[in-house]
Formats: sequence, structure tokens, C-alpha cells
Amino acid sequence: MSSPRSGVDVVTEALAEVHGRYGSLSDGRVADYIPQLAFADRDCFGLALMSMDGHGYRAGRCGVSFTLQSLTKPFVLALALAELGPDDVGRSVGAEPSGEAFNAISLDAVTGRPANPMINAGAIAVTALVPATSPAERFSRILECLGRFAGRTLYVDEDVYRSEVETGHRNRALAYLMRGTGVLRGDPVQAVDTYFRQCSVRATVTDLAVMGATLANGGTNPVTGERVVPEPVALQVLSVMAMCGMYDAAGSWMLHVGLPAKSGVSGGLVAVSPARFGIALHSPLLDAAGNPVRGVAALRELSERFGLHLMHNAAPGAPTVMLSTTTSSGRIALIAAQGKLDFTAAERVLFALERRRVGAPGGVVLDLERVTGMDATAKAMLERALTLLIEGGHDVTVVGDLPFRARGTWRRSTDRAQALAAAEHALTAARDPNPDPGRHAG
Amino acid sequence: MSSPRSGVDVVTEALAEVHGRYGSLSDGRVADYIPQLAFADRDCFGLALMSMDGHGYRAGRCGVSFTLQSLTKPFVLALALAELGPDDVGRSVGAEPSGEAFNAISLDAVTGRPANPMINAGAIAVTALVPATSPAERFSRILECLGRFAGRTLYVDEDVYRSEVETGHRNRALAYLMRGTGVLRGDPVQAVDTYFRQCSVRATVTDLAVMGATLANGGTNPVTGERVVPEPVALQVLSVMAMCGMYDAAGSWMLHVGLPAKSGVSGGLVAVSPARFGIALHSPLLDAAGNPVRGVAALRELSERFGLHLMHNAAPGAPTVMLSTTTSSGRIALIAAQGKLDFTAAERVLFALERRRVGAPGGVVLDLERVTGMDATAKAMLERALTLLIEGGHDVTVVGDLPFRARGTWRRSTDRAQALAAAEHALTAARDPNPDPGRHAG
Amino acid sequence: MSSPRSGVDVVTEALAEVHGRYGSLSDGRVADYIPQLAFADRDCFGLALMSMDGHGYRAGRCGVSFTLQSLTKPFVLALALAELGPDDVGRSVGAEPSGEAFNAISLDAVTGRPANPMINAGAIAVTALVPATSPAERFSRILECLGRFAGRTLYVDEDVYRSEVETGHRNRALAYLMRGTGVLRGDPVQAVDTYFRQCSVRATVTDLAVMGATLANGGTNPVTGERVVPEPVALQVLSVMAMCGMYDAAGSWMLHVGLPAKSGVSGGLVAVSPARFGIALHSPLLDAAGNPVRGVAALRELSERFGLHLMHNAAPGAPTVMLSTTTSSGRIALIAAQGKLDFTAAERVLFALERRRVGAPGGVVLDLERVTGMDATAKAMLERALTLLIEGGHDVTVVGDLPFRARGTWRRSTDRAQALAAAEHALTAARDPNPDPGRHAG
Amino acid sequence: MSSPRSGVDVVTEALAEVHGRYGSLSDGRVADYIPQLAFADRDCFGLALMSMDGHGYRAGRCGVSFTLQSLTKPFVLALALAELGPDDVGRSVGAEPSGEAFNAISLDAVTGRPANPMINAGAIAVTALVPATSPAERFSRILECLGRFAGRTLYVDEDVYRSEVETGHRNRALAYLMRGTGVLRGDPVQAVDTYFRQCSVRATVTDLAVMGATLANGGTNPVTGERVVPEPVALQVLSVMAMCGMYDAAGSWMLHVGLPAKSGVSGGLVAVSPARFGIALHSPLLDAAGNPVRGVAALRELSERFGLHLMHNAAPGAPTVMLSTTTSSGRIALIAAQGKLDFTAAERVLFALERRRVGAPGGVVLDLERVTGMDATAKAMLERALTLLIEGGHDVTVVGDLPFRARGTWRRSTDRAQALAAAEHALTAARDPNPDPGRHAG
Repeated sequence: MSSPRSGVDVVTEALAEVHGRYGSLSDGRVADYIPQLAFADRDCFGLALMSMDGHGYRAGRCGVSFTLQSLTKPFVLALALAELGPDDVGRSVGAEPSGEAFNAISLDAVTGRPANPMINAGAIAVTALVPATSPAERFSRILECLGRFAGRTLYVDEDVYRSEVETGHRNRALAYLMRGTGVLRGDPVQAVDTYFRQCSVRATVTDLAVMGATLANGGTNPVTGERVVPEPVALQVLSVMAMCGMYDAAGSWMLHVGLPAKSGVSGGLVAVSPARFGIALHSPLLDAAGNPVRGVAALRELSERFGLHLMHNAAPGAPTVMLSTTTSSGRIALIAAQGKLDFTAAERVLFALERRRVGAPGGVVLDLERVTGMDATAKAMLERALTLLIEGGHDVTVVGDLPFRARGTWRRSTDRAQALAAAEHALTAARDPNPDPGRHAG
Repeated sequence: MSSPRSGVDVVTEALAEVHGRYGSLSDGRVADYIPQLAFADRDCFGLALMSMDGHGYRAGRCGVSFTLQSLTKPFVLALALAELGPDDVGRSVGAEPSGEAFNAISLDAVTGRPANPMINAGAIAVTALVPATSPAERFSRILECLGRFAGRTLYVDEDVYRSEVETGHRNRALAYLMRGTGVLRGDPVQAVDTYFRQCSVRATVTDLAVMGATLANGGTNPVTGERVVPEPVALQVLSVMAMCGMYDAAGSWMLHVGLPAKSGVSGGLVAVSPARFGIALHSPLLDAAGNPVRGVAALRELSERFGLHLMHNAAPGAPTVMLSTTTSSGRIALIAAQGKLDFTAAERVLFALERRRVGAPGGVVLDLERVTGMDATAKAMLERALTLLIEGGHDVTVVGDLPFRARGTWRRSTDRAQALAAAEHALTAARDPNPDPGRHAG
Repeated sequence: MSSPRSGVDVVTEALAEVHGRYGSLSDGRVADYIPQLAFADRDCFGLALMSMDGHGYRAGRCGVSFTLQSLTKPFVLALALAELGPDDVGRSVGAEPSGEAFNAISLDAVTGRPANPMINAGAIAVTALVPATSPAERFSRILECLGRFAGRTLYVDEDVYRSEVETGHRNRALAYLMRGTGVLRGDPVQAVDTYFRQCSVRATVTDLAVMGATLANGGTNPVTGERVVPEPVALQVLSVMAMCGMYDAAGSWMLHVGLPAKSGVSGGLVAVSPARFGIALHSPLLDAAGNPVRGVAALRELSERFGLHLMHNAAPGAPTVMLSTTTSSGRIALIAAQGKLDFTAAERVLFALERRRVGAPGGVVLDLERVTGMDATAKAMLERALTLLIEGGHDVTVVGDLPFRARGTWRRSTDRAQALAAAEHALTAARDPNPDPGRHAG
Repeated sequence: MSSPRSGVDVVTEALAEVHGRYGSLSDGRVADYIPQLAFADRDCFGLALMSMDGHGYRAGRCGVSFTLQSLTKPFVLALALAELGPDDVGRSVGAEPSGEAFNAISLDAVTGRPANPMINAGAIAVTALVPATSPAERFSRILECLGRFAGRTLYVDEDVYRSEVETGHRNRALAYLMRGTGVLRGDPVQAVDTYFRQCSVRATVTDLAVMGATLANGGTNPVTGERVVPEPVALQVLSVMAMCGMYDAAGSWMLHVGLPAKSGVSGGLVAVSPARFGIALHSPLLDAAGNPVRGVAALRELSERFGLHLMHNAAPGAPTVMLSTTTSSGRIALIAAQGKLDFTAAERVLFALERRRVGAPGGVVLDLERVTGMDATAKAMLERALTLLIEGGHDVTVVGDLPFRARGTWRRSTDRAQALAAAEHALTAARDPNPDPGRHAG
């Protein structure tokens, strides 16, 4: 009998493989714009995946903490969006890729807004937007929010913070430029100070994977179960990460990996597969665009191997519409669906329904027995379609449960054969002057 | 009884609604950089959706043809990628958003490459890459490829072509700049001439929706069934569209609509929901970024209404793992899955399996009876997991069909109860010195 | 007795000294953007000065011819200005330094005009402005004009021309960009072809010194005596050279050398000391800004040694106003001037005159006997001052010749003592009821 | 008899004319980036010229004081250059025109240096270079230096200063950017504070004309007689003003006016005619480039009218070489010069001398009686030429005084006829075996 760890953990196995394969990459260089970053262990490499169900997988050194730096940008953006909404945030910062490096000036010539929240200027503007009555309170809210994303209390590295304060002149320049254009209000030096504190928050690869999983999970931390930000905020943050998260290599990253992601100068990287998982890594050797060399290679392979690319077109499974026919009487349309319904699946069902309905004077039977779920879109589409059928005078029978209330007169059944029989019966009765008393309201 | 068209066509109904709502938008202006464009009917507005199953839906004027202009860029990129592969194409053109307008120079200072294939410079470079022995053959291949995407033969508007030739000095300048940096080989004026012909190809909104659906469908035209480009090419093209297709409004589009898309100066727009559909529209009134005013508004609403955003996190359906337990004997792990399996679903199954396995000395029963499909990733993950279990000496039973061949000794069953009974029996027999002769090789 | 060449030729001696001192500089690199340039002898170094009087001085290899390249730019600008005037030329090209390299795009975002005529784009626009009925005639006029500046017929190097044509894609790009903005009319490829022919004209260092001397001499060739362009054109060309002639090292050149100048990629350089001389050199080793390393060093030393900087403030010579007094009678103001009069000298004379006049009821005697010349400004100022004095009723006597006609009644004299005596006499007579019949009209 | 002011003051008359002609120009707008500037009287217009002799001329309102703003830049640059020298200053700031507006960022991508000291970034860097042990001392030195240029104590406008401090975020941004690149040391906010104080110094048009005249006069205030900065510093400052003083209209200004100049946002402008005068004006209506509309028009006319353009080629006066001949004996060369000698005049004398000398075995007589002065260059050239003649064994006689000591044996004379006779005598004696005992050492 095998030991537990030599079990069926295919995901851990894959992480370990890419960790082994790319852990020996030694090109790239450790960032040194502040001395503390230059102290980083260039050989350190950890990789962790946290699913939206809270399942964690790891390879390498995932418990070593490092300062999050730019990795905080999407999460503080999430906080600002949750507090203020996209319109208010959008008045201070754009959402366009700048095609430039992380510390580019990239302020719009007309509005003075920084191009996006993933470059330093935009991140400083976003940090300053977090509502608070004092800088201390503002940072306290940011630190708490980062902690809720990670599922545990995080701390500031005071040495790194002091080092940032001592050397961060360019960021102060960006803040003053934004103060000059009106994008930033209040004291620019104070705004940058808060930003430096935020950059100096330490977390582990495991923490970062949980943070990413929270975005993958629509804003709810899959480990703690806490809702950190609303679902639309998670969608907005992931959109910005997709376009702007990897600096001037964003396009190449989308082409080869195809997941929204964010990197940081300390060598951390977090990528998110929406409605699937967050994946994080740490390796201080950076390429020319400022992204971790080993991490980019590892995620590129994982994306290809597991078909994770946003544009990936998976092989189809069983057809949504199991059966689309007209009964032997030639009068009743029968449509049976299966699986989980989203827009496309619902469209398929309704397309089949519409096609059959035209030649079926006796009504329709819609069998949803083997449907395993519907998203909001599918529910709305089916609800609307049933309403139209009923209002159009069709005799309608639904087999199985409907996860919404349909108005009007129709028939519910738990068995397809019974439903078809009832429909045929109703058709005959309808020709009969006496209406069928068996109908009930849905 | 209702008329056929007043039936359950919820998708057409939605298209008609947004067509009606935004068809009255009259801000924006008609492009006039060549006279023929300025002749466009500013009130024209058509909207069509073609699903990857080949189901078509329409609202407004979808049969009016217009010149595709920049809308040809992703499709000729697809042709070049199919012929040459991403590495060769990448030597001539980047994949990074430039944050600039469609006619920006945006050549890399070091490599001389244009930033991406969606700006004019990049598109001219891509057109010139299409292998051919003569310009005429090159254009013939391009026209044929566009026709295969559309599912019908397309034609050049000779008036527009001549007008482009007369006024296209800036594009010739871009070509000469690229000739100077070595990105372009051969005669720049000839390269631009081919590009102008390509821009002058006419198509309808319906055609354009089919072209988009072909990309959504992984490169196979869902109407004609013809494979136009391989699946990886479709993925690559959609990635570039997502990052660069909407010019300097690409970030805003990703934020609000969340679909890879491309617009053209004639007022056309095509967006793609991967593995779902292509949607196209035509409305000549353009906003400052060069995108059709009505179309942007209409697609934003449709995306929100139908949950089409790439980052959308749909409500979960029925759980992948229907059952994860240990039999009453406490010795057999039983995992039952349902629905279609992709990476995340397979991960869930294996996660449950691993958890149960540890405390189940008697083996595992994996019930896949209600699984409706597996993508390549899920197949590979399950195949690997079964191999590990078998090699680890576990007693393994699979209920239902496996879409791959698993090596080693294991048990197949068509019924869960029988499978559990057989597993219990095997456990008892295993304690018995006489090995069970009933085992067979999978 | 010394040989003639060991005589008093201090200028040649100085040229030979700097030629010797900087001829050994071997940093810098030979331009190779076309193969013919790369063939240049890197050790070649010649230096020639031609005064506005036609005195020539030389050191090193001044008879070797080389293609003028960008050195033609100021002279073709002169031709265009002479033909069209500054307003027409200014509609096609600016006069602002761009702070960028010679082949920068630098087109104004609003007007599409290139920044100045010394960068390639601007020079191409200027060449195209030369009025002609055909490209052949246009180039013929340009070649003839260059020859008139040099004082001999010049020729095109056909090999270099062909090489330019083969490799000059970037220049064609610039031309097409300007064709697109409307700055350039006609065929851009043809315009660039004429520009390439112009760049391929060969001349020697001696020729180039004569060309510079012609600008120094207000547009008249000091060797042939031919007026090549009007004086205002020479002034305009020198202004543009001062601001834009040395590419992105124009400011440093002004700081250290202080003369309008132009360099070319073949290693030639011409500098002009207005109303003094032209100085030219050739040395193919170029610095990062594209200027010849040895030439920049040599001219910097010559400028310092001979006080040639435009902003140089020479030690004053004898005072303009030799004498400014009131006669012993206390009634007559006497002002005596010497030397050549320009604005400042005339101002000094008139300042003295005004100061003395106030307390001199008996009139003024202005002694110009030792004045050696007046420029147009000084003439106009003195003419106006005399008119004011006469109209103001002063008794005026001028000793010496006036180079203009003064209206009104005044006295001319050839001797100061006589003039003073006559003035005193007139004063006495004026008190006398009988007017002095000796006065005559000036 | 005329009133004193209706006298011969042609310069004042000209100032009054252009003041009248352009004082009615009302296009342009008053700067309002700080409220205090917007309070300026848009109709105010004063114009003053101060010659390098200390002669002052005025038209309009010249006694109204205004804050100098950018007009302080060249004068503080002069202070820094005087204290540190051009090499040290050059390490912190370039001297190249940026082709950009006054508040452009324009930091060199490699060195981080601002393009030049006339844009805000460069001026802040220069201000910070002024050696001092405290910010208060630094500003005190700056204020004192400005006062020495103006010839009177100047004061800070505290309201304007406070307003600058409140709104000057962009300048602080520039300072932080330079702090980041290492160009600026110390506290950026403090550096900008000193710069704001400097900008808020008030002066009148008359003051500003004196400041300009001090530069024209090689660094010595012509009114107080005080040397403010060394002559090379004045030359360097004027060079920088010529290239960069008029922002992005520097080239147009050079073309049309041709004098080094500086403008300020408060509507002041100072221009300098080297070795002639400073001219200043104040008129708050600014054009798009930030230069005073009326002032630009007025100075353009004055420059043309008085031939003040740096490239102006004045009509020649009397010839430098009055006489160049060989005596009737055919043995003695006689060269007589007149006027003030500079490089070109000395070159003419030596050119004539060399030409005559060759055929004159009996020696040379150089008549300098009517030479009215020599600059350092002419002295050095003549000294060298005499040395060469004497060393070459020529019999040399100089008529008139030499402003330097010539070594070797030669003859001095006070009368040309005597000199020629003595030379002929010496020639005869030289053929005689007995050497002439009358020769003496020079």
C-alpha cells in the first residue's frame, strides 16, 4: 500500500515537475532598487495553487515570506472599487495598458490620470482613494483588507518600509505630478508613504495563492469563507490584471499564458483562473520586464498542460440537448437537456425548442431532469422563453424542477412519459369543448 | 397559437432590444479619411450573433455590406500564424498593446518591430508575411482565407481600394520605416497595396458574425464545417484581439465588455466569446477611439445581461463530486462524479479521491456514470491518477466508461452496487492466501 | 632671410597647430549606414578657413573630395528662401531645434511640419520646395546653386547616390509621412530621390570653406564676387544653423564654440563667423551626436584662441566719442567721434550730443573727421538726429563728410577750429538783429 | 530752442514708436497658474534699453515692478557658473534646447539631467547648486546676486511666494524626479522652495534692462561699475539664453530677432545684444509659447530697424588696411592699418604683410598710427607675427605704439617717413660690413 503522499495528487505532481524543471533557470537579476530587495535569496523558488474550493497544492519553498510590493496593487484596487465603485475610481485612474514600464509616468495629457492602477502612479492614486479620516486609518484598512484576502493577519516589514521611504523619490515625483493635475488630493508625500507601507507588507507564496483564489472565487475567500469584495469587483480587478498586470510584457503573457496576473519586484507573481483557482509563486530572479524568470516559464507550461488559457476551446462534452424531437403523434415537441446551463447551453435549448415548436401544434415538453445547474443568465433566458410560450398560448410541460417561478398556466411533471401522455391528453381535450380541469397555475 | 417569430427566440429578442435602445445614439462621427467611407449611411445599424453550433440571430440591417478595413487584421494574422507559426510571426511583430491610436508609429526602438498586429504598421507587416510567389498570389490567398472564415466568397470594393491607394501615404510611411528597420522585406509600396486590397474587402454583418464564430469555435467554421485554422491559432488570435483589438480603448473594453474584439474604421466590430459565439455589428458613427458608438453600448449591455465577460464567475451548478465517502465497512473509498470534467472538475474528483483513499485500505471505487464528458486535460489527469493508484497497489474499480486506456490491473463495472460488492470481496480475498483469479488487466 | 612659408602666416600656423594636436584623436566611428561612407579613410583630416575678403588658409588634406550629405542642407535652404521667401518656406518647415537626432521624425502634431530644415525630414521638404517644372530641372538648379556657393562646378558621386537610393527607406518614410500631412506635395519617392542626389554631391574642404565664407559675407561669394543669395537669406540660414545645425549637440556647440555650423555624416563640418569667414573641415570619425570628433575639438580651440564666439565681448578699443565738451564760451557743444559707427557707436555719439546740447544754447559742432565708416543703422540714426536738431532750431555744424543728405539749414566744415569759430560767430550774429547771410542749406 | 526731451534722442524715439505701435496688440492671455499672476494689468507695457556704457532709454511703464519668475533663471545660472564653473554645473544640467514647453520633464534618459537650465527642471537643479550651508543662506546669496545684476536691492513678493508654494506641485515632482536620478541632492521640497522664492523676486523693467546690460557688458554692471560675474560666465549664460531662453519658440526668435533672450510667465522679457546693451520689457499678455505678444513684436521691429541680429552683416566701413605697398626702392614693404583690430582686422593686416613681405628683401614697416585699439586676439596675432618676422631675420619697423612687448631686435618710430628712411638706411648699412650701431632691442 502506498504512502499518502505518493497518492493520486496529480496537481502537486505537476507543480513539482515544473518547479524542478525551471528551478535551475539562473538568468535574470535580483531587483536592487532598495538594498533590502537585493538581499533576497536568488535560489528561492516556491509555487502554490489554491482552488476556489479551498484545495491547496504546493511545490518548493512556499512558507518564506517576502514583501508584496506591486502585488498589493490589484488587492488595494479591489478595496477602492468596493468602497467607491468603478466610476469614482475611474475618475482618478484609467484602465488602459500603457505599453510602458512599471515606473513610467504615463499620465494622460488631458485628464492627468495615470494610465492604469497597475503602474506605480496609478497605484498611488488608488491607495489615496481608500476612504479614511487619517493616513493611519487608511493604512489600517488596507492592511486589514490584504489580510482578509490572505485569510490571516499580515505585517509590515519595517526595514523595507524605511528603505522605500529613503529611496522612493521617483514615486513622490509621480505623486506630485498627480497632485498638480488634480488627480491626487491631499499631501503627496503622505500618499506615497501609505503606498510604501502597503508595498512593505510581507506574505508567503501560500498567502498569495489564497489571495488569488479569492479573486477566482468571485471575491469570497475560499479558505475562510469570508466575502472580501463583491463579485463585480473581482471581475473588474481581474480585467485590469489581464490588460495591465504584467507591465510591458502583458501582451506576451496573454499570448502564452492567458490568465490575469500580477507580478512584483520582489519576485512574487499571482495568476488567477476565473472560477477555478489562484496560483502564486516567488522567485527573485527577474527578466527585463520585471517578471520572475522561473515563474513565467513555469506558468506557461502549466497553462498549456492544463488548458488554462482564457481563450482555450475545450473539447465538447455530452451535448446540452440530449433529445430534440416531435412525438410520434407529430403534435408534441420534446426537448431534453442535460448538464449545467449557461448562456450558450440555454441558447442551445431554446434554439432546439424554437425549431421543434413551429411544427408542434400540440405543445412542448421540456425535460430538465438531467440538468445539474443553471447560472443566472440561463435562468433568465428560460424564464423568459417559458413566459413567451405560455403567453403565446402553447401547452407547456416541464419535467423536473425549475429554479425560478414561471407565471401563467403550465404543467409540471416528474416523469417524461407521464408528461408526454398528459400533453397528448390535453391536446385531445382541447378539441373537446370541455376544458381540462386538471391544469393548475405555475 | 403564436406565429413562429413570436416564439421563444430570447436571443433575437435581446438583440432587438439593444438595437432599439442604442440605435438612436447619434454622437460620434463617420470616418472620412477616404471619401468612400464618408458616404456611409450614418443611421445604418445591424447586429448579428452566430453561435459555435451555427445558430444565427440578427437585429437590424445585417445584409448591407461594408469594407472590412481593420476588421481583416485578426483574420490575416490567423492566416500568417497558420502558415508560419507564432515564432516566425513574432520576429516581425510584437503582441503588446501600444496604448496608442491605430495609425501610431509604435515601432520598437531596438527591434524595429511594430508593437502588435492590430495597429496598421503591424498589420502591414503581417500581410507581407503571408507566403506567396507574387503579390497577386498573396492577395489571392488572403481573399480566399477571409472567404473561408466567412463561409462564402468575398469581393474587393475597387472604388474604396483606389481611394485607399490615393490617400494612404501614412501607411506607406509606416511600411518604409519597417523596410528601414528590416522588419519588412521587399517593396513597401507593394506591401501596402496588398494591405489596401485587404482593407477593401466587403462583407456583411452576418458574414462577420460567422468569421467571429469560427474563432470562437477553435478555427472551424460552424456553418460550413470547414477547419480554417488550427485551434492554437484561434487561441493566439483571440489573445491578441483581447489585448490590442480596440486600440487605445482596449482596457476600457476589457473592463466593461470582457470579450476579445476588433473594430474597423468603417464602423464594423466583431467580438468573440470563446467556445460560445461570434457577434458582429456595423454602425458607422465612431467614438474618439475609433470604435462604433452604438456597438460599444450594445455589447456592453449584452455582456452584462448574459454574463459573457471573460472574468465572469458564474453561479455554481450541481457539485462535480456527487458523493465522497467510505463504505460502511470503513474500508472502501467511494467517489462519484457528474457533469463535464475539465481541469477544475478533475482536480475536485482527485482531491476527494486522495482524501478518502488515505483511510481506505480496501481500495477505491470511482463512479463516473453521470460524467457527461472530459476535456483533454481531465482525461490526462484521471489517466495519471489511475496509474498512480494502480502502481501504488490500490484495488481500483471504475464504474462507467473511461475515454482513455489505463494500464495495469484494475476492475471495470457498470453498476456502483456491484462494484462496491466486488471491492469488498476482493478485500476479503486479499487477506486470504489464495489470490483472486477474477482480476483482469485493464 | 626666411622662406615665404615661414613668414607671418599666423592663421595658417594656428590651423596647423590644431590640426596636429587633434589629428591624432581616434575615438569616434566612421558612419556606415551606406557602404560607400564606410570606405572613408578614417585618418583623413583637413581644415580650411576662407575669409570674407577671400583670403584662404589651410592645414592637412583639404583637396580630397567627399560627399556633402547633410552639409547641403543650409545651402539648399538658402536657395529655397531666395526663391520663395521665409513665409512660404515656413509654411512647410519650422525653425525650432528638435532636441533629437538627424533622422528623427519630429513632425509637429498639429501642422505636420518637420521641426526644422536641418533634420532629414525638414531638408527633404525644403528640397521639394525648390521651384522647377521637373525633378531633373529641380536638381539641376540645386547643383548649380551649390556650385555658385563653392565657386566652381560640383558633381554627383553616382555610386553614393545609388547606395543612398538602395538603403534610404527611412527617408522615404519621412517623405510619405509629410505627404500624408500635406507638407509635401507630389511624389514622395521622387522628392527623396532629388534629396539623395543632393546629398551625393562631392566637394573638398576648400570648397566648403568658400561656401561658408559666402554666408559670412552676406550671400556674396568672396572668391568669385558673385552674389549667390540676398543678405537677409544669409542671415536666416545662419540663424537656423545656429539653432539646429549640430543636431542634438547644438546647445553644447553654441556653449563651447559659439558659431553657426552644420555637420554631415561623411565627416564634413562648416562653421561661419558672420562678417568674418567660413571655416570647414573633414574628418570621418564621428561622435555619438554625428559630429566629427577632431573637428569639434579643433574648432573649440580656435574659437577660444581667436575670440570667435558670437557672445564674445571683446576688449574695447579707442572710445567712439573722442571728445564731448562745451566750448570755453560755455555756449557751443562739441562732440568728436572716431572709428566705424554702428548702432552702439551711433548711440554713444547721440547720447553725448544730447547731454551737451541741453546746456549749449549756441548750437552744436559734430566732428566726424575721424569716423571711418557707418553702417545703415548708424546713418539712419545720425540722419534722424540731425533732422531733429535742425527742426528744433539748433545751430548745427558738421565737420567732415556725411554719407547721407540732411535736410534743413546747417553748416558743413572741413576743420574743427573753423567750425567752432563759425558757430561762435553765428551765435553772436543771432543776437544781432541782422541775420547771418553766410548760412547755407545742407 | 527745443526742449531737452524733444532733442536728438533717436533711441528713445524708436522705443516710443514701437511701444505705440504694438501697445494696442490685445491677443494673448495673462498667465493664471497662480492667482497673483492673473491679477496683472493686461494693458501694462514698458520697454527699456540700457547700453553697456550705462546709457538708459525708456518708453511706457518701466517703473512698475513685477515678479521675475523665469527671468531669474539666467542670472542664477550665472551665479552657479561663477561659483562652480561650467564642468560642475554641466554634470547636473545640460545645455540643449528641448523643443518643449517650460514645464516639460525633459530629463535625459541616461544621465537624468534636465535638458537645459532655462526649463523649470534645469533651473531648480541650478538653484540647488548654489553653494551655501543652509537654504536661508542659499537664497540670501541668490537675492544678493540678483540685486548686483540690477544695481539695487531687490525684494521678494511674499504673496506670490506663498501662492507658488501652494500650487507648485509639478515643480516638486520635477525635483523629486531629479532627486531620484541623483541630479539633485538634499531635500527636493526645500530646493523647490528656494526656487519659488527666487521666482517671486520683484523688479522693474528698468532693473531688468540693467541686468541684461550687465551680461552685455561681460558681467560688469554698467551703472554701478561692479563686476558681478566673470566675462566667460556672461558668454556662457548668453549662449544658453540664445539656444533655450524662449522655450519652444527659441528658433523662431533667433530667426526673427537674433538676440539671446529670456522671457517669464509674468510677462517680462530681457534680450541682450552682446557688447552693446540689454533691453527689457513687461507686458502680461502671453502667446502660446509663453512669450509676451507685444514684446516679441516690438523687439522684432527694433532688431530689424537697428541691425541688431547676431547674424547681421553690417556694411563695411573704411578698410582696415589703409595702405599696402612696396617702397619706390622696391625693397621695403609698407603696411598701414586703421581702426580697431580684432581677429578679422588683424588677419587682414597680416595677410597684406605676408603678401608684401615676400618681395621685399629690405624689411617691413608696419604703420599702426591710426589703429584705435586691439582686442586680445589681435594683440596675440600681431605679437606672434612680429616674432616670426624678427626671428626670420627681417628688418622690422613699427610706427606707433604697440600694446604688448615684442621680443628681439626691431625698430620703433613715431613717424612713417622717418621709419621708411631709417629702413632704407639700415638696408644700405646691412650691405656695408659695419653693422648699424643705431639698432636697439624692442
